[in-house]
Amino acid sequence: MKRAKNRACDQIRPLRITTGIMEYPDGSVLLELGKTKVLCAVSLTHGVPIFLRNKKKWWLTASYALLPTSTKSRIERESIARRNERSVEISRLIGRSLRSVIDLHDKSVEKTIHIDCDVIQADGGTRTACVTGAFIALKLAEQRWLQSGLIAEPMITDEIAAISVGIKDCTPLLDIDFSEDSTVQADFNFVLTRTGGVVEMQGSAEQSPITGDQFEAMQDLAREGVQQIFVFLDTEMLSFSTVNQSITKALTA
Amino acid sequence: MKRAKNRACDQIRPLRITTGIMEYPDGSVLLELGKTKVLCAVSLTHGVPIFLRNKKKWWLTASYALLPTSTKSRIERESIARRNERSVEISRLIGRSLRSVIDLHDKSVEKTIHIDCDVIQADGGTRTACVTGAFIALKLAEQRWLQSGLIAEPMITDEIAAISVGIKDCTPLLDIDFSEDSTVQADFNFVLTRTGGVVEMQGSAEQSPITGDQFEAMQDLAREGVQQIFVFLDTEMLSFSTVNQSITKALTA
Amino acid sequence: MKRAKNRACDQIRPLRITTGIMEYPDGSVLLELGKTKVLCAVSLTHGVPIFLRNKKKWWLTASYALLPTSTKSRIERESIARRNERSVEISRLIGRSLRSVIDLHDKSVEKTIHIDCDVIQADGGTRTACVTGAFIALKLAEQRWLQSGLIAEPMITDEIAAISVGIKDCTPLLDIDFSEDSTVQADFNFVLTRTGGVVEMQGSAEQSPITGDQFEAMQDLAREGVQQIFVFLDTEMLSFSTVNQSITKALTA
Amino acid sequence: MKRAKNRACDQIRPLRITTGIMEYPDGSVLLELGKTKVLCAVSLTHGVPIFLRNKKKWWLTASYALLPTSTKSRIERESIARRNERSVEISRLIGRSLRSVIDLHDKSVEKTIHIDCDVIQADGGTRTACVTGAFIALKLAEQRWLQSGLIAEPMITDEIAAISVGIKDCTPLLDIDFSEDSTVQADFNFVLTRTGGVVEMQGSAEQSPITGDQFEAMQDLAREGVQQIFVFLDTEMLSFSTVNQSITKALTA
Amino acid sequence: MKRAKNRACDQIRPLRITTGIMEYPDGSVLLELGKTKVLCAVSLTHGVPIFLRNKKKWWLTASYALLPTSTKSRIERESIARRNERSVEISRLIGRSLRSVIDLHDKSVEKTIHIDCDVIQADGGTRTACVTGAFIALKLAEQRWLQSGLIAEPMITDEIAAISVGIKDCTPLLDIDFSEDSTVQADFNFVLTRTGGVVEMQGSAEQSPITGDQFEAMQDLAREGVQQIFVFLDTEMLSFSTVNQSITKALTA
Amino acid sequence: MKRAKNRACDQIRPLRITTGIMEYPDGSVLLELGKTKVLCAVSLTHGVPIFLRNKKKWWLTASYALLPTSTKSRIERESIARRNERSVEISRLIGRSLRSVIDLHDKSVEKTIHIDCDVIQADGGTRTACVTGAFIALKLAEQRWLQSGLIAEPMITDEIAAISVGIKDCTPLLDIDFSEDSTVQADFNFVLTRTGGVVEMQGSAEQSPITGDQFEAMQDLAREGVQQIFVFLDTEMLSFSTVNQSITKALTA
Repeated sequence: MKRAKNRACDQIRPLRITTGIMEYPDGSVLLELGKTKVLCAVSLTHGVPIFLRNKKKWWLTASYALLPTSTKSRIERESIARRNERSVEISRLIGRSLRSVIDLHDKSVEKTIHIDCDVIQADGGTRTACVTGAFIALKLAEQRWLQSGLIAEPMITDEIAAISVGIKDCTPLLDIDFSEDSTVQADFNFVLTRTGGVVEMQGSAEQSPITGDQFEAMQDLAREGVQQIFVFLDTEMLSFSTVNQSITKALTA
Repeated sequence: MKRAKNRACDQIRPLRITTGIMEYPDGSVLLELGKTKVLCAVSLTHGVPIFLRNKKKWWLTASYALLPTSTKSRIERESIARRNERSVEISRLIGRSLRSVIDLHDKSVEKTIHIDCDVIQADGGTRTACVTGAFIALKLAEQRWLQSGLIAEPMITDEIAAISVGIKDCTPLLDIDFSEDSTVQADFNFVLTRTGGVVEMQGSAEQSPITGDQFEAMQDLAREGVQQIFVFLDTEMLSFSTVNQSITKALTA
Repeated sequence: MKRAKNRACDQIRPLRITTGIMEYPDGSVLLELGKTKVLCAVSLTHGVPIFLRNKKKWWLTASYALLPTSTKSRIERESIARRNERSVEISRLIGRSLRSVIDLHDKSVEKTIHIDCDVIQADGGTRTACVTGAFIALKLAEQRWLQSGLIAEPMITDEIAAISVGIKDCTPLLDIDFSEDSTVQADFNFVLTRTGGVVEMQGSAEQSPITGDQFEAMQDLAREGVQQIFVFLDTEMLSFSTVNQSITKALTA
Repeated sequence: MKRAKNRACDQIRPLRITTGIMEYPDGSVLLELGKTKVLCAVSLTHGVPIFLRNKKKWWLTASYALLPTSTKSRIERESIARRNERSVEISRLIGRSLRSVIDLHDKSVEKTIHIDCDVIQADGGTRTACVTGAFIALKLAEQRWLQSGLIAEPMITDEIAAISVGIKDCTPLLDIDFSEDSTVQADFNFVLTRTGGVVEMQGSAEQSPITGDQFEAMQDLAREGVQQIFVFLDTEMLSFSTVNQSITKALTA
Repeated sequence: MKRAKNRACDQIRPLRITTGIMEYPDGSVLLELGKTKVLCAVSLTHGVPIFLRNKKKWWLTASYALLPTSTKSRIERESIARRNERSVEISRLIGRSLRSVIDLHDKSVEKTIHIDCDVIQADGGTRTACVTGAFIALKLAEQRWLQSGLIAEPMITDEIAAISVGIKDCTPLLDIDFSEDSTVQADFNFVLTRTGGVVEMQGSAEQSPITGDQFEAMQDLAREGVQQIFVFLDTEMLSFSTVNQSITKALTA
Repeated sequence: MKRAKNRACDQIRPLRITTGIMEYPDGSVLLELGKTKVLCAVSLTHGVPIFLRNKKKWWLTASYALLPTSTKSRIERESIARRNERSVEISRLIGRSLRSVIDLHDKSVEKTIHIDCDVIQADGGTRTACVTGAFIALKLAEQRWLQSGLIAEPMITDEIAAISVGIKDCTPLLDIDFSEDSTVQADFNFVLTRTGGVVEMQGSAEQSPITGDQFEAMQDLAREGVQQIFVFLDTEMLSFSTVNQSITKALTA
């Protein structure tokens, strides 16, 4: 299996993370994975949705959108057309993933954490890039909230990252890009913890069903990919200790 | 692990299938799984979406909706409020699942197959019940299209069924109902072929991440559940040979 | 005038009523009138619309919708397209009809009664079928509210049923079905009390105007039809004394 | 029964009709009935709705809207909020009424007649005022189309006018105004031909059901009211022979 | 430069103002400028938008809409289609203009002033006609509020009127009508105080850029036009001393 | 008048322009003006709006939107809530400005140029920043179209840039930022050609009207500001000769 730029089957694309790109949200990250570029921002608003009122909890919600020219053919801006259904599905995936690693209970004042993910350029893997980027932005925001005294202790309970895996000619491929995406037999997205625990999994084999063994191989590859992301973060981001200083770090293939 | 009505951990709820409940669609199924009741109908309209025009293909699209009183607390009718985001996500899941086992190419006249799934009563597992019910309704519709000469040969390329699996106190539970759903640690939905091939998988561990082994056990249980569905269908529905005769068949626990 | 299945001009179609089909609403009825099938459910929510607040009243509102495949040609699901104007008109008719026979005053806690009518199959007369079905479901719900102590005394002040009448070749026809509907000169819907009092009337003569005498004949026929419905209910439903037991009763022609 | 301004029970309010108030539509009428003021305009656009294409027919559609300050308490402009349901119902009533007296068949070029009714001031009876005003505007438009050669012969097949009737303390009242409307037991709207034929009828007895005799008395009163309108039109409008000359004619009580 | 009806380049079209045309709003004006006719109404509702709550202020908001047949080709009613973008832009212009000459501070009860502008006939200059008409209606409303004791002292702090100016063949033209509008090189709208102060200015040179000198000439002409409006108002409307008496006054060319 | 960072009253904020930030649109620019950051992209789609069909013309349309966290308090994403009215107004301003300097006539194949402006960070002056950024992106796109042979000769007929001017304590201030914006008496936006010709002007004096002299001073300042922008572009961007090479150039105060 030969991939663009001599990438190995078990190798993620070059990763670049820039923090502090926006001044107003509590945490923001520009995550680039190959040509895919997503901007993730975390902010707080007062109050919670009606179904949660008076439970002394916070809420976390996510929204994902594509800029009109983020794709090869311009897509209609979502603000004009009716809500894009694919974006709805992805927004829900991001929200569930982040809620699985944060403790929202026992708060005196009700607040909602907003995760806003905007895709600047879409070359495959935008939803998993957003989960990873949003997690880092949430980490940065948590530090700010701790420093300002808004929260007394950390809320984040585990670390997650996400990656996609495809199968082409029966071979699993890590982190498929857009051109690969259109030729693979199956495409799965994995949101995993640092230790490989499954937080969210979602995928389909539109071309033809895959076997249990193939699915296991995909899972293994996903764990490998998430490991590569954490190694990069550990090396370059110093455990997120820099709060919203503008830093740009790249993992080159 | 003790379940309601002495159900075993690896046992699906009583299944009942009624065909021919609607006269106008080409295939229709009322599928009941315990207290969950879904109505699935298959119909055809002329034409395909813009992005598919002039490719001599058909298209298949699905939509899922809850009746207002299908849930314990009445929900707003989707026609009045803005589109329910959970329904959007599920509609896409159903559509992808069915498209994975149907050959839509090489058609002289462009048509769209509509899969309409309406939940009459929601007691957990509605999305997987809809996939299974929709597949049976599609089988019935295919027979009608073959008999009328609309299509010359079968379009369906494989057989699928779907089931959910939860994990509670580290034990996997097959086909969880609503009361179980609110206490499980993780909830996964599997769309599998008769031979166990993975067509679609989607789930999350909102309470706490699950291990690879746990996930594997869930998969095994899902295969077991899908097997139970196929045994029921084979025994009771005579390989779908009755075209839209009104039959009601039940698998009792 | 010869009608399908040798039905007389003053005869309603076979009627079948199934109660208790849904577990969560306070009252539910599947009403079948010939091939027309409507599902009517009654439920309560907290609060009232803004214009009624702090008046110690309840409110009653109704909504009517067609399932996509309830008609010969599939119709767009209302949740996706903009609200269907015909459904808006019918929802208002159902709501006004039910409000005319219920006393909503003098309540300590403000609540809204929702009447949800979903058409499973449309073969003419769906709006009148919904009024009749909704009235029966409301009766069942009232009994449940009385038994649970939610209300201290009955709220329903009169009994209603509804039926349509058409005119074809100057002859009035009771309870016209879809194939008759497309050929009649005029089509009127009557909501009447058991004693023949007029609660709501709505109709048009799109083909050509009708005379006062013809209109009077239509009214008489409507009273006859409503009488047939009440006789059936009295005989078969034991004055609604069975609260949400699943019973199926049919009036055959 | 004593009414405002010593009006008799069988007397309509002062009527005033001003034609030619708008320059661009093919026919326009400002109709004032007491304090109720409605502006009705008739115009043409190319093409017909999809369901009518290639049938060599025209289509006629109506829309009704309230200006924000036409009511005692300002109402939200319909363009901002979602479509007002009462306006939907009334728009359909107007459209059906007008379609019942116009022959839309056998046209070489497909066109749609638009009836736009805007309520300047609402003091009861706006929907019937709009039917009457729209009919006069359609007459004027028909003359213009005949004169310009757009149509070769008249399309209007009958003459209609509309009026409301209420029942208060068992007495029928012709043409009730807003203050009466809130106290009546029943409120019916009649669209009748010059000779008293029924074209459309719609009403409800929200307070308490009415008897057949009462309904007959209401019908008689409606015929009387429509007669008063036609006498006024015959006397003052010279059988609509003036095409869009600006004339203002009043019937004073 | 020869204009229709021998109008001079620095002359506004015949102006006609009718007050008291609507009974329910606190102030209403029908302003006619040539063939352009706009209806402006001022009313009050309780409360203010969320961002202003608890600041002891009133709010003023404006909305502008075209009647469907106000233009040469019928336009879709805004209530059905999505909000017209041009109308949004103009609504904001009207709102800002009026807010610049009213003191909304220091109120005990929060209220919102609604300025509703509906275009009956559009022959160019509707947005400036609406600003002028709305200002007069606001003056009338202010008098009513003072007389009823709702406010203790005047809120309006200055007087404004508005007019458009175009440039054709390098010559500035005052108050261009629709036929001129389609041929001018630039089209600017000026909202000015009686003494010529600039309150709002908005315009574009879509055909080709204009020089600073040309722009100055346009400004001078606008001041001239606004002067003509104020002279008319001073002469005919007696400083707005007549509160909502129905008067019609015309300035003929 | 003392400004932040010792900026002079007639000095624009530091300007930075980065091209080639997006791969798919034909031209893209990230323009930073102080803390204000806007992303402008130019792309083409087939076809033109209905009102322009078969006129052998292209069309140019613009859309402006704020990212949710671009402002100090997070704003609702436009895709979920209804369209933001301020964004509608600004989109129209950008579209008109760009259309005034491009020749869209005499094209064989109808196409629409889309100008998409997304605000990453809003610190005042976003609408003028977008006009300037969009113009540069359009220049880059034009070069690409020329090189690919899509167009035979340049379409852009003039050069524009835009800047805002405020008045504070009677002193005009060039390029006001957000904190200044909330204290100024008036705020005007100028779109000017390189030679100072007026293309679009739009502004208001919400606090108190301004005199003609003040307005003239604002215009002069705007010409000065646009001059500063063009000097920067001439020096740093080599007359736009680099087609979508990623370059970042900054004008520091």
